[in-house]
Amino acid sequence: MTDQELMDAAYQQALKSYNEGGLPIGSVLYSPDDDAIVARGHNERVQKGDPTAHAEVVCIRNAGRRRDWPQLTLVSTLSPCIMCTGTSLLYRIPRVLVGENQNFLGAEDLFRERGVEFILMNDPQCIALMKKFVEEKPDLWNEDIGI
Amino acid sequence: MTDQELMDAAYQQALKSYNEGGLPIGSVLYSPDDDAIVARGHNERVQKGDPTAHAEVVCIRNAGRRRDWPQLTLVSTLSPCIMCTGTSLLYRIPRVLVGENQNFLGAEDLFRERGVEFILMNDPQCIALMKKFVEEKPDLWNEDIGI
Repeated sequence: MTDQELMDAAYQQALKSYNEGGLPIGSVLYSPDDDAIVARGHNERVQKGDPTAHAEVVCIRNAGRRRDWPQLTLVSTLSPCIMCTGTSLLYRIPRVLVGENQNFLGAEDLFRERGVEFILMNDPQCIALMKKFVEEKPDLWNEDIGI
Repeated sequence: MTDQELMDAAYQQALKSYNEGGLPIGSVLYSPDDDAIVARGHNERVQKGDPTAHAEVVCIRNAGRRRDWPQLTLVSTLSPCIMCTGTSLLYRIPRVLVGENQNFLGAEDLFRERGVEFILMNDPQCIALMKKFVEEKPDLWNEDIGI
């Protein structure tokens, strides 16, 4: 699968969450060995009342217990916050594909410091959906990032 | 409540998990304003097959959606890993009380860099229980920290 196909799959997760009234942030985990998406997730903080349910955490949670983390790619529509970055670093995921960091700049420095391959795609559909949400529901968004 | 009373409450969570066959790591969140524990949690990775279910993440999850994070104290029997550290930093929890870092040294530098009050208690009961578990089930423990 191409990086763009993976980002499109993450975007579909973001769109699903938006349509549920949640934060439009989506994530997938990709296994290059299998050329397959092994888990998907989207932000569920509003849907489940769980402050830890950011898209990347949910996606990693959905991937279940496994030992192949150092072969996977984490894909997220938005620059990962420090919780999601920490989760990815804990499991030594070596490659991270990010849709955009215009609406939120996460802990990208931490990824780079630790040698993770960090790819920013500046995806117009990710930027537009997140921008729309932040304008519509600024309070929900601020709660998401601890403000 | 004293720091020792809070650590004892976290230890009870760790012991509960140990008795369930899980990792003996426990956490509580304390509100000084209410002088009360507002959430409890223990590692549930084995119990629920959830790789993100470290004690501190579960405790913060159990605390639900709230806005008073910058008033709380996070208590953990073991030095928090980078995922749990990131989660605590995301919500700007200003004070962290840790039982021990002899069995595992987490991302303490990150707390200090960001001005969090980090208190290490060197609690003998926390040290002993974790040491016992690591000796009994080294493979389960390594899986917990992404090794």
